[in-house]
Amino acid sequence: MKYSKEDIQKLDKRFRANFVNSLSGFKSLNLVGTTDGETYNLSIFNSVFHLGADPALLGMISRPNSVKRDTIEIIRRTGFYTLNAVCEEIYMKAHHTSARIEGSEFNHCSLKHEIKKNFTAPFVEESSLKIAMKFIREIPIIENNTIMIIGEIQEVYFDEVAIDKSGYLHLEKLNILTGVSLEGYYKPELLSRLKYAKADKEIEKI
Amino acid sequence: MKYSKEDIQKLDKRFRANFVNSLSGFKSLNLVGTTDGETYNLSIFNSVFHLGADPALLGMISRPNSVKRDTIEIIRRTGFYTLNAVCEEIYMKAHHTSARIEGSEFNHCSLKHEIKKNFTAPFVEESSLKIAMKFIREIPIIENNTIMIIGEIQEVYFDEVAIDKSGYLHLEKLNILTGVSLEGYYKPELLSRLKYAKADKEIEKI
Repeated sequence: MKYSKEDIQKLDKRFRANFVNSLSGFKSLNLVGTTDGETYNLSIFNSVFHLGADPALLGMISRPNSVKRDTIEIIRRTGFYTLNAVCEEIYMKAHHTSARIEGSEFNHCSLKHEIKKNFTAPFVEESSLKIAMKFIREIPIIENNTIMIIGEIQEVYFDEVAIDKSGYLHLEKLNILTGVSLEGYYKPELLSRLKYAKADKEIEKI
Repeated sequence: MKYSKEDIQKLDKRFRANFVNSLSGFKSLNLVGTTDGETYNLSIFNSVFHLGADPALLGMISRPNSVKRDTIEIIRRTGFYTLNAVCEEIYMKAHHTSARIEGSEFNHCSLKHEIKKNFTAPFVEESSLKIAMKFIREIPIIENNTIMIIGEIQEVYFDEVAIDKSGYLHLEKLNILTGVSLEGYYKPELLSRLKYAKADKEIEKI
């Protein structure tokens, strides 16, 4: 079936949000941890993406006028945050952080905060892949009043069974999930890893 | 185990690229179709992300100095491109488009181009989710010389069995895959869809 731009504009607002949010494909799922020095905040983001390996940069998109505003304001003010991959063991608790919660989402959603040496922002103890991030810059997306946050990776923590000798991290060995729209949670199964592609060669599995 | 920023900087270049590319989590996989009026070009992107539902906007990241430069130059010049989700049936062919190919990647990788009425850029016939896109703007990411492309959804095509009455698109019914780094291809299995979260209520499945 076909939806045109005009069809999409005429849709009921919730239907449209769910539909358009499904179109970009499977999404990464991360819990963003911050603190203002008093409260430990936690908020689920499905828009973290790779920006570059050297320097090691990640981007993420935020709506300034949403529930998530606290997170962005604290990132701006303190300069630091954590990314904690959503794994199978905690995905329902992770989803709960999207609610309008007074006080610490860690407490409210029964997730443990973890403080590491020389880093102020809190990690999620139960997460299997934790990244300490330094805020670099934000870029306004004027078309819809969202902002893109650029951050630099400071530290990465995970179980060593997940890393391959080539540097590849088997996210499936860390039970990490992927999402669709704002409500679908999926467990990915590895089909194959493919070797670097060359024009005149058949594609080979690793 | 722990990798610090300094550890990451000291890594072998290929190891670092594979490692850091794994850290953002599971990625969407799309084939970007373009034409300069002569050749039909196709190129795999693992960086398409949701920007907003109204207007319906998608972003993607590109390296201006990579193999993919043709795609970006044609998008700038013509103003249009297509996004075609990578599904299980074509993932090895899709991976092949990342090679340095002379002439049309459609021909070289045995994928069929499909031209729809009133839209110049070519779709991938075999893809189960096809989106016609209009180029809106590009944003330079000065930190690493990449660019972010913002585009607006013009038309969307998929089999109607995949859409729920709420607007949710079951990407698993379209056999759409997700990726890790530049080499891992995964098939996601639906764990559950979760209802909109409220602070004072338990999380419920849909």
